[in-house]
Amino acid sequence: MAEKITKRADDYSQWYLDIVQQAGLAENSDVRGCMVIKPHGYAIWEKMQRALDRMFKDTGHVNAYFPLFIPKSFLAKEEEMAEGFAKECAVVTHYRLKTIPGKGVQVDPEAKLEEELIIRPTSETIIWNTYRNWIQSYRDLPLLINQWCNVVRWEMRTRLFLRTAEFLWQEGHTAHATQAEAEEETRKILDVYRTFAEEWMAMPVLTGLKSAGQKFPGAVYTLCIEAMMQDKRALQAGTSHFLGQNFSKAFDVKFQDQNGKLEHPWATSWGLSTRMVGGLVMTHSDDQGLVVPPRLAPIHVVIVPIFRKPEEKQATCDAARKLAQALGAMPPDPWYNYEPLTVKIDDRDQHQPGFKFNEWEVKGVPIRVELGPKDLAQNACVLARRDLPGKESKMMGVPLAEAPTRIVGLLKAMQSALFERARKFRADNTLSVDTWDDFKKKIDEPGGFLWAHWDRTRETEDKIAAETKATIRCIPYEQTKETGKCVLTGKPSEGRVVFAKAY
Amino acid sequence: MAEKITKRADDYSQWYLDIVQQAGLAENSDVRGCMVIKPHGYAIWEKMQRALDRMFKDTGHVNAYFPLFIPKSFLAKEEEMAEGFAKECAVVTHYRLKTIPGKGVQVDPEAKLEEELIIRPTSETIIWNTYRNWIQSYRDLPLLINQWCNVVRWEMRTRLFLRTAEFLWQEGHTAHATQAEAEEETRKILDVYRTFAEEWMAMPVLTGLKSAGQKFPGAVYTLCIEAMMQDKRALQAGTSHFLGQNFSKAFDVKFQDQNGKLEHPWATSWGLSTRMVGGLVMTHSDDQGLVVPPRLAPIHVVIVPIFRKPEEKQATCDAARKLAQALGAMPPDPWYNYEPLTVKIDDRDQHQPGFKFNEWEVKGVPIRVELGPKDLAQNACVLARRDLPGKESKMMGVPLAEAPTRIVGLLKAMQSALFERARKFRADNTLSVDTWDDFKKKIDEPGGFLWAHWDRTRETEDKIAAETKATIRCIPYEQTKETGKCVLTGKPSEGRVVFAKAY
Repeated sequence: MAEKITKRADDYSQWYLDIVQQAGLAENSDVRGCMVIKPHGYAIWEKMQRALDRMFKDTGHVNAYFPLFIPKSFLAKEEEMAEGFAKECAVVTHYRLKTIPGKGVQVDPEAKLEEELIIRPTSETIIWNTYRNWIQSYRDLPLLINQWCNVVRWEMRTRLFLRTAEFLWQEGHTAHATQAEAEEETRKILDVYRTFAEEWMAMPVLTGLKSAGQKFPGAVYTLCIEAMMQDKRALQAGTSHFLGQNFSKAFDVKFQDQNGKLEHPWATSWGLSTRMVGGLVMTHSDDQGLVVPPRLAPIHVVIVPIFRKPEEKQATCDAARKLAQALGAMPPDPWYNYEPLTVKIDDRDQHQPGFKFNEWEVKGVPIRVELGPKDLAQNACVLARRDLPGKESKMMGVPLAEAPTRIVGLLKAMQSALFERARKFRADNTLSVDTWDDFKKKIDEPGGFLWAHWDRTRETEDKIAAETKATIRCIPYEQTKETGKCVLTGKPSEGRVVFAKAY
Repeated sequence: MAEKITKRADDYSQWYLDIVQQAGLAENSDVRGCMVIKPHGYAIWEKMQRALDRMFKDTGHVNAYFPLFIPKSFLAKEEEMAEGFAKECAVVTHYRLKTIPGKGVQVDPEAKLEEELIIRPTSETIIWNTYRNWIQSYRDLPLLINQWCNVVRWEMRTRLFLRTAEFLWQEGHTAHATQAEAEEETRKILDVYRTFAEEWMAMPVLTGLKSAGQKFPGAVYTLCIEAMMQDKRALQAGTSHFLGQNFSKAFDVKFQDQNGKLEHPWATSWGLSTRMVGGLVMTHSDDQGLVVPPRLAPIHVVIVPIFRKPEEKQATCDAARKLAQALGAMPPDPWYNYEPLTVKIDDRDQHQPGFKFNEWEVKGVPIRVELGPKDLAQNACVLARRDLPGKESKMMGVPLAEAPTRIVGLLKAMQSALFERARKFRADNTLSVDTWDDFKKKIDEPGGFLWAHWDRTRETEDKIAAETKATIRCIPYEQTKETGKCVLTGKPSEGRVVFAKAY
């Protein structure tokens, strides 16, 4: 814990890795490309899951579980998907090892599968193969199903949380009787994702449509939420796909509509993953360590009793326990997903208060309570907010009786402040660009989100990406109507789109 | 839904499959040995997870996530484990497919892994390989970590929930400074499992030690909870293993103790899986369909408004909504894990009440409320309890204002009644057997749990299993002290153990 965190300004990538490591969020495993999600990182993911899962259920969705394995031939049935995922598939070819005394274990050549199985990179194929038996009549629709699971996409260049061979996510797969209803679902989920990002993660996002070059393989179109990290690069944070009838046709799923006519149902799919933990780190953290928005904090409050003598320890620890109890007894609040506030008392003997303050700062605990003999003599304590710098963060002489209410107030204030700070950061790093020279210059320096006109062709999109490494992050829903000329080709454009370098 | 459920007495196996299918719990997938857990089945598993997860956290455990893949060589490091699991391992050998236009996809022979990866059948090896970096000092101990995940054990003969190639579970993996502390943890978790089984699942269990023939490969010893299904066969429902220093030695994990001496930590592991959903079905269900203990019910109450004319529909549905609201507003109760009661109103036009009653009975909803115009005229309703037969289940003329309190009372009464019924069933089907002839006869007819003396040798255990297909389910903690002679060999025995045929 005494290790230094690299400063963002010095080496952004190393800063990120330092935070992930020193806050105890995750680490690389000895399995290539796969990470271990450590308890503090997993606790954040659990909070995310709890919040999202409730939102899915409130919008009529239920959870289910489909197999990890997908027969190779299933993938081939939807051509675009096969093309899109074939290069990243982990393939199971055998189902047995044999032990050879003194020589360890070997793959048993006699246990070769007739058809290879791939580890799901996404589950549209296995799920639509199952839906064939579940959907006969319009009465069976809509099917609104979500699954929490692990998926594998064999990545060559990985980065903890942001890009790993195995990751955890939720994937929704819905089936509808009409195109309009499926498209409405696609939008509804985008709105769930936006609400989750903004209200829980305190992460402002653009919402909009992906260009053809960026859409999901197998989708008719893809909607996304797109966030800006502190190095001004974009992070695709969640996607919602309108799949049309692509999968219902590929897997021969039909239903009888109200007029007795056989139709293919319309589909959506949508996902949000542990990548979001990386997004959380990169949106809010600072040079002192992790900063977690209070609604997703695994520990809301740490109380550090300050003592030298045994009688001081006794008195301050007693007061700490009393305060912790009072905090734990605050009425359940939807703001925390109806869970009690989590309070930690750090009464370790072997460390000095300064060491403890630093450790909990690195771990991103939103509120620190300092409780020394002098505070106690006045029935008071000191509160410190994780997101404010140095002295500004401290509130001295807070009466202990008022502390629980004040703490809840601070948690809510911090949540809003983080969101506002991130929104300002994005605004400060968003530019309009009208010429190609300007584009090429500004995409590198100062960087950020570049709003520019584009002629809506794949060709131009690819050329811009090849020359600048910037991609179209989205065609945003919220923008002022404005026609113009494509920044590269000068051809007519119906409106600006957002370019950026992305994770 | 109108399909008949096979009677238990006619064909027990088919009865089980009928329930699983018609209650919408699970189905076989097109991937050999893998099941699809359908929404109603998954909802039961979610309730189980929620209850268990809280118990783990209340006993100081935290969750984390380790990779799905295990390098083949890791498995080889602990010989007994390698021997135990090698024959059931799914093996990943390649990391890429290639698409061949018009011919689908093929495994890319150039993308062969240097070292094959197996899909985790259990995670001791990958986790202890990770712990090596996490444990240096006694201050790093204990490590109390749990993981919720999927695992794969390639099974040749599968049965939904009870034995599938892929299943979901939790696996705890703890590390301790002393043997005594690790053994205490092994017992503490067994107690968590027993409490969960008895208080949440209403499933009485024996607790005890596994014999050498039944212990977990790699464990020093295995503790278990063991339940009796309605066909009198045993189900191993959860296991807690004391691993000694087997894995810390195999993976070279050492820590400095308080005296500065380097030691290998002591380990436990423990798991409970979706198999328990099958156990729930087989413990409580009847010839009418699924019976779910109320604390784990995805839907607690179904309200069926009964109407013919539109004005009747209006009135009864209004009253149903009002009652549902009152039920939803009952204060959160630890008895339901602080979650609101789940209430469903079945106001479908196309089905008759009898059809609806039957459907919700098949799905195991604990309480049905019938609300017709005549009931409404008296501001009353009819309550029906799922676990009681026919007319006995009905309470007529329950005042609507009292219904919420009465319903909660019935839910709690039903939970206790299910437990008592299962306990009685087990008692009625438990025998003491003292001679080998008696053993051989009674293990088939009447069957059940046979308490018999055993000479504590592996040889005798294996002989009995070979001749009768009965295994030692456990050496129970709770029994009267009694010495005797082994039922097979006549050699001295220190106490009876429990034999049964098992799933």
